[in-house]
Amino acid sequence: MKPNNQSDACIGIVGLGLIGGSLGLDLQKLGCHVKGLTNKGITAQKARDRKLATEISTDSRILVDCDLVILALPLDQLIHPEQSLIAALPESAVITDVGSVKGPVLKIWRELHPRFVGSHPMAGNAKAGVEAGQIGLFQNRPWIATPEERTDPYALSMVKELALSLNCDWVTAHADLHDEAVALISHLPIIISAALLRTVGKEPNQQIKELAQKLASSGFADTTRIGGGNPQLGASMASSNSAAILHGLSSYRYSLELLEKAILQGNWPELKKELELTKALRPNFLNSQNQT
Amino acid sequence: MKPNNQSDACIGIVGLGLIGGSLGLDLQKLGCHVKGLTNKGITAQKARDRKLATEISTDSRILVDCDLVILALPLDQLIHPEQSLIAALPESAVITDVGSVKGPVLKIWRELHPRFVGSHPMAGNAKAGVEAGQIGLFQNRPWIATPEERTDPYALSMVKELALSLNCDWVTAHADLHDEAVALISHLPIIISAALLRTVGKEPNQQIKELAQKLASSGFADTTRIGGGNPQLGASMASSNSAAILHGLSSYRYSLELLEKAILQGNWPELKKELELTKALRPNFLNSQNQT
Repeated sequence: MKPNNQSDACIGIVGLGLIGGSLGLDLQKLGCHVKGLTNKGITAQKARDRKLATEISTDSRILVDCDLVILALPLDQLIHPEQSLIAALPESAVITDVGSVKGPVLKIWRELHPRFVGSHPMAGNAKAGVEAGQIGLFQNRPWIATPEERTDPYALSMVKELALSLNCDWVTAHADLHDEAVALISHLPIIISAALLRTVGKEPNQQIKELAQKLASSGFADTTRIGGGNPQLGASMASSNSAAILHGLSSYRYSLELLEKAILQGNWPELKKELELTKALRPNFLNSQNQT
Repeated sequence: MKPNNQSDACIGIVGLGLIGGSLGLDLQKLGCHVKGLTNKGITAQKARDRKLATEISTDSRILVDCDLVILALPLDQLIHPEQSLIAALPESAVITDVGSVKGPVLKIWRELHPRFVGSHPMAGNAKAGVEAGQIGLFQNRPWIATPEERTDPYALSMVKELALSLNCDWVTAHADLHDEAVALISHLPIIISAALLRTVGKEPNQQIKELAQKLASSGFADTTRIGGGNPQLGASMASSNSAAILHGLSSYRYSLELLEKAILQGNWPELKKELELTKALRPNFLNSQNQT
């Protein structure tokens, strides 16, 4: 991707799952030449069938003439990258990633490539794998980058252009700030939601448990959606951002105990006041994508 | 509503909010004569404009010739019913309610009317008030009744017929069992979800809080939906079902601490195992209405 000349750009995408595949579809639609790298032949074939990139290979040499390479890999593969991948990245190319935790990714990659920019498009759904990629996933979603003092300004501008070309809202922040914020709005909710599923699923009274299963409706489905998501993703987010999650959990316990105390004391005006507060807080966390 | 002769039935609905209004619309469609009772003239007029019932009044004498009266009132008005309402209920009519907690409602109503049947259609959405009623709200949703030994069998069969005519799944259970089950799948999630909103909304670091607001996406919106709902409804559920909610909270704290301990100890295989468990548990709590 070259400024104002997208159709000339050659963009590499490493990993063609939900994020990588969706990027491939959108970028081809914008006229870019997209080179997709996957690790298995069978995935490459499925990706070709779905036309997730212009060219698709399992050989990392495919990246040789890319102007920009997007590492759309799971977090653990970003933090522990394969030597062959590192060796295949052109030194002149801009490299970015899409990992949901930025501190540990930057710690590794700032040493590995002079033009690395940490970034995180805030888009996703429950799907995963080579079948998951879809057109328009990033439309109107935030794309946050976490530049440092040493970040190459040209590389940052290229990632910004990428984000804007996908109609993302461009945001920048310090990696630590990003990791604290996503702990609160993304990682902490996974743990909270999983604990709810565990509580009901482990209910020892079989009659209550069976009735709960019969009666559960959309409220329960919504509250437990992310706690019933991808276990590997949840565990790798937690392992890469544990300090911020533990900090959030400690703060969460305080709020939970405050509400529990109101119930225990039968202080219904206090409980109602707190629920009025939470009702008033929620719209601040909604954007055009989730106004319900 | 008379068995096999619905078009002759005269059904009273007390309260024309989301549940009462939706019942009125569906029952008229089935050919029933529906008499709606509201407490304010302005509400009655809006309900007439929306055709929520065949006849609508603020005078409780409208209920005089009803075969079945559905008390679609907020929980606190069910538990502390007005004398004028009690006096207006025909002794021969079958009376039921739609309250989300059944023990305290039965405790009052079993003494007030010989043909009372406690029931709870498990349907709803975020809307409330006279504008909220909609066609088909109960379709394929569970309708749970909580008969006791002394419950009039004819009255129970009439409520069952009502539920089946609306295409609900008919379920019966002891009131205590119902209240324990809804504490787990409905009331506990409200508290858990509200505590999450409170945690993020009270984040003391303004930069983190603002970034969290910018980046929050559908996962956060889902997890906090019911914690940002109607404060009065939440407080009145909690006050009517506090023992079961406190029991659920105690069990929830155990599950939360177990997940927190895995993070604190960096025991990622254990955390992944727990997230695999919660992923496997969730489908048991989904039905055709919330398969996502």
